Amino acid sequence: MTSVEIEPRITTGVVEHITKPEPRSLGRVLIQCRDQPGIVSAVSRVLTDFGANITSLDQYSTDPSGGQFFQRTEFHLENLNARRTDLDKELGDRIRDVYDAQVTLSRVAYRKRVAIFVSKTDHCLLDLLWRHRSGELPVDIVMVVSNHSDLADDVHYFGIPFMHVPVDPKDKTVAENRHLDLLRDNVDLIVLARYMQIISERFLNEVNVPVINIHHSFLPAFIGAAPYRKAKERGVKMVGATAHYVTAELDQGPIIEQDVIRVDHSHSTQELMRKGAEVERQVLTRAVSWHCEDKVMRYGNLTVVI
Amino acid sequence: MTSVEIEPRITTGVVEHITKPEPRSLGRVLIQCRDQPGIVSAVSRVLTDFGANITSLDQYSTDPSGGQFFQRTEFHLENLNARRTDLDKELGDRIRDVYDAQVTLSRVAYRKRVAIFVSKTDHCLLDLLWRHRSGELPVDIVMVVSNHSDLADDVHYFGIPFMHVPVDPKDKTVAENRHLDLLRDNVDLIVLARYMQIISERFLNEVNVPVINIHHSFLPAFIGAAPYRKAKERGVKMVGATAHYVTAELDQGPIIEQDVIRVDHSHSTQELMRKGAEVERQVLTRAVSWHCEDKVMRYGNLTVVI
Amino acid sequence: MTSVEIEPRITTGVVEHITKPEPRSLGRVLIQCRDQPGIVSAVSRVLTDFGANITSLDQYSTDPSGGQFFQRTEFHLENLNARRTDLDKELGDRIRDVYDAQVTLSRVAYRKRVAIFVSKTDHCLLDLLWRHRSGELPVDIVMVVSNHSDLADDVHYFGIPFMHVPVDPKDKTVAENRHLDLLRDNVDLIVLARYMQIISERFLNEVNVPVINIHHSFLPAFIGAAPYRKAKERGVKMVGATAHYVTAELDQGPIIEQDVIRVDHSHSTQELMRKGAEVERQVLTRAVSWHCEDKVMRYGNLTVVI
Amino acid sequence: MTSVEIEPRITTGVVEHITKPEPRSLGRVLIQCRDQPGIVSAVSRVLTDFGANITSLDQYSTDPSGGQFFQRTEFHLENLNARRTDLDKELGDRIRDVYDAQVTLSRVAYRKRVAIFVSKTDHCLLDLLWRHRSGELPVDIVMVVSNHSDLADDVHYFGIPFMHVPVDPKDKTVAENRHLDLLRDNVDLIVLARYMQIISERFLNEVNVPVINIHHSFLPAFIGAAPYRKAKERGVKMVGATAHYVTAELDQGPIIEQDVIRVDHSHSTQELMRKGAEVERQVLTRAVSWHCEDKVMRYGNLTVVI
Repeated sequence: MTSVEIEPRITTGVVEHITKPEPRSLGRVLIQCRDQPGIVSAVSRVLTDFGANITSLDQYSTDPSGGQFFQRTEFHLENLNARRTDLDKELGDRIRDVYDAQVTLSRVAYRKRVAIFVSKTDHCLLDLLWRHRSGELPVDIVMVVSNHSDLADDVHYFGIPFMHVPVDPKDKTVAENRHLDLLRDNVDLIVLARYMQIISERFLNEVNVPVINIHHSFLPAFIGAAPYRKAKERGVKMVGATAHYVTAELDQGPIIEQDVIRVDHSHSTQELMRKGAEVERQVLTRAVSWHCEDKVMRYGNLTVVI
Repeated sequence: MTSVEIEPRITTGVVEHITKPEPRSLGRVLIQCRDQPGIVSAVSRVLTDFGANITSLDQYSTDPSGGQFFQRTEFHLENLNARRTDLDKELGDRIRDVYDAQVTLSRVAYRKRVAIFVSKTDHCLLDLLWRHRSGELPVDIVMVVSNHSDLADDVHYFGIPFMHVPVDPKDKTVAENRHLDLLRDNVDLIVLARYMQIISERFLNEVNVPVINIHHSFLPAFIGAAPYRKAKERGVKMVGATAHYVTAELDQGPIIEQDVIRVDHSHSTQELMRKGAEVERQVLTRAVSWHCEDKVMRYGNLTVVI
Repeated sequence: MTSVEIEPRITTGVVEHITKPEPRSLGRVLIQCRDQPGIVSAVSRVLTDFGANITSLDQYSTDPSGGQFFQRTEFHLENLNARRTDLDKELGDRIRDVYDAQVTLSRVAYRKRVAIFVSKTDHCLLDLLWRHRSGELPVDIVMVVSNHSDLADDVHYFGIPFMHVPVDPKDKTVAENRHLDLLRDNVDLIVLARYMQIISERFLNEVNVPVINIHHSFLPAFIGAAPYRKAKERGVKMVGATAHYVTAELDQGPIIEQDVIRVDHSHSTQELMRKGAEVERQVLTRAVSWHCEDKVMRYGNLTVVI
Repeated sequence: MTSVEIEPRITTGVVEHITKPEPRSLGRVLIQCRDQPGIVSAVSRVLTDFGANITSLDQYSTDPSGGQFFQRTEFHLENLNARRTDLDKELGDRIRDVYDAQVTLSRVAYRKRVAIFVSKTDHCLLDLLWRHRSGELPVDIVMVVSNHSDLADDVHYFGIPFMHVPVDPKDKTVAENRHLDLLRDNVDLIVLARYMQIISERFLNEVNVPVINIHHSFLPAFIGAAPYRKAKERGVKMVGATAHYVTAELDQGPIIEQDVIRVDHSHSTQELMRKGAEVERQVLTRAVSWHCEDKVMRYGNLTVVI
């Protein structure tokens, strides 16, 4: 309760007025290679030679000498869209080829196309839809896919297409083919927002985009079904959630983010589920945001979040 | 992603099947008085004499000898509704009169009637509406009142009446009278879910129900307007939120709940606002839940949350 | 940096001067039985009949009807030491026999006798010794036992006896017998403060007092040896620690307390160990404190901490 | 309790053996200036031209165009000690002069010389001494200065000189002169580890090194004396601590780090002090560590921690 409705801009003192540059002139370069002397300098020189100004640079090496090297650089470059083919070629010649590096150039203005899978539980889905609507989650949500129709109305309220694809437990191929028809070459990311069906290796291979899942425990504790029941039986004093990339092995993929919340003996399994739901939605939303801002780099079964 | 959709009940081992008793047979007694020997025993004896089974008992004394005493007891009593007048009389005779105590008897099944005030910011409102819909917040939301019409559609989607009461900054009396017409003798609680108008002492006196506000800082830091801007200027490393009962003095009422989130130098004021929004909605929802479960007892300018 | 050295007493307003009663007149009753109507009332009546004033009462039932019931009551009774035999008999007649309950009466003034086992890692040990010295941990530390001599000087600095009992990996019986000679009928609690040796079932049976261990992971994740290495390999985003009662099954005993700390990809295994050490010592100290204040009740493989 | 005492090295898989380079070949460059295109590239080019390998680079700008720019770079350079004069000259010519930047070159192997001030409260002091002994805090603790003699034995146990400098409340000049004699040109940093005396502006000017203080509240809440008492009276639900650089204005200097811990109505002022002590020592130790690793850059009344 305050008498002023609008948070005033900061106009005096050392805290300055922030002039965000046009997103269309902002780009990112992701690098991954064996660590070698001169790599940071070489990348920044390419960008400087193009007239780009580096606005953010994060790098990490698994080992000061001879480790794996990761770098994420954001830069400001007028007319980026017109010049990105040239810049990509230059990065190819002077970085990709010289350092045997994976180099990815992307535009900040490009919004990743995302499909969300869900079953009947709504909290993770609604958190993503809300933040999408408020502008916090800079992605295009192309559709929501569900094996049930329960959440259709909620999804329609947000103006997002809802695809009901029932799954026959005896033959999941029909549903899987339908999923592939909907998603192949259509999305950049799939998010399993409490989708209670196993994802097959064939699907992962054919859809060929990253799949992020939220598991309702602090992995590697309580892998598989019914983690809150197992948590209650083991008497843990915290429950958690884990967002990870899906791989062919159940609940074993690279972890992007985790968090926990305190519980005690008095909480029933249902209350653990409710408490855990708070953590699940926060952890999943953070993981999706970071992925979509190109902050997550995979390396073996690990992630580097920079 | 698991192969089982339903969290199974716990059926074996020491973790037992929970049979929640009918809420209609559940009651609560709140006691506040000077601490005196025998008070806990006296209350439990009254309940036992009525055939009630105590299912939860929390008490607190500000001082082991001669302090202020607070007790919250939940009990199970068949046919509570029919017998509560008798029980209340007995508590009056044997507790209220003997110990000079404030004694409040309530039924768990009774859902408090709540009005929510909001301006244009939606996160606290939506969190309350969402949890209300999911059954987590056991109250009746009677209406949402706003000095703007921006959030009408969202409120209607949840099937809740939306009252647009514009506030003339030169004469707030008209709006205040309209508020009193809507709320007097109609609600048990008013929640200010980021309502950006000063509440007058006259309104507090006339509406005569508790008013809970969410202030967007860790009080007593950053009292008044624009706390996130002040937080940015001071360079704090955490931002927070405070839910408190509203009194005539701005941001000075009894604190119910607080929480914080970590920030750093790189966050703009806008990002502090976004981070803080997460905390605001959690803190307000917790405070409203606790109040509605009769867990918050006021004492001077303090609260006892038991 | 303030101009006043002593934190002044609160002397005005609703926050009152706290007059702690003499510890020698403070007692505790712990109850565990099948939940039955009237039990809370019956216990408080016994205490009131003796002239005791209940200063704290916590109870919990696993199920509102027919569950397991736990109660911890603190009370003030003049001349407790002289009257406790009578009080115990009365509790036996009116509670233990009537409700088939475990009933334990103890004096707050009695300090539990504790032995600490340690190997070479000092952080958990030093945290316990420090808090013991500052008066925060109201126990008698009878001795520190170690399979190495590295920490002898530190322990002596605190004026505590240090027993070096080397363990022969080929025959651990000699060491075990020495332990039993030192501890049998001599201590109320054994604390394994990073003691890197398996405790045998025979030892547990013969020493016949609770044994609390700190495991350096968030159990049930990373059971067994080298949890920080496993955490690094799995790429978790938090590391934790678990204090639990030791049972014959490694790392499977009832959990008393857990906590975690955030880590990221850049932390080496050594840095995870250092970060985890902070959590380990806090978790172990909390668990030991709660146990020694009779706040932990065991039930199957679970704990109720009230 | 595990069967293995030594945390094994990681030797297989993607998690590699970490070969820390010799600290004597590690250097740091800190830069602060108005943000200008090409600055990141220019610094990395200088380092690359010298044959240095950048192992860590963090930068931050208060505004993408025209803000204040901060950069911290760690690098590996054989024979750093012999070549640092040349490198510093080169940085001067190509960075300091060209970009009108503050440029600081330092060696990681150099351990900052630190004096700790303390009164009677030991927890912050002991935490620093303990971590210093364990090697976690890579500084030289030159002496401990106190206005009381209570903690002399503890300090001597760690082998650190203890200077008792009583402070006459009527004339603090004598003590201040003694402090200046001890510290001027002798230390790089002064840490007030619960030193309960006001530091004068004259002292700050004459000693001319940074002074870090731990304030026992979440600033700007509860400035000045007796913050825990004030926290109790206001009924806050968390208490905190703030580490900041000392300036002439009491409790107003740039904040380096803050943290909080949850409390409730049942905690007395003494218990708030005990809970807060945990936070104080962690916050102070983190602030001192970061300062000594050159991670804290001051800017107006703010800090950038990178």
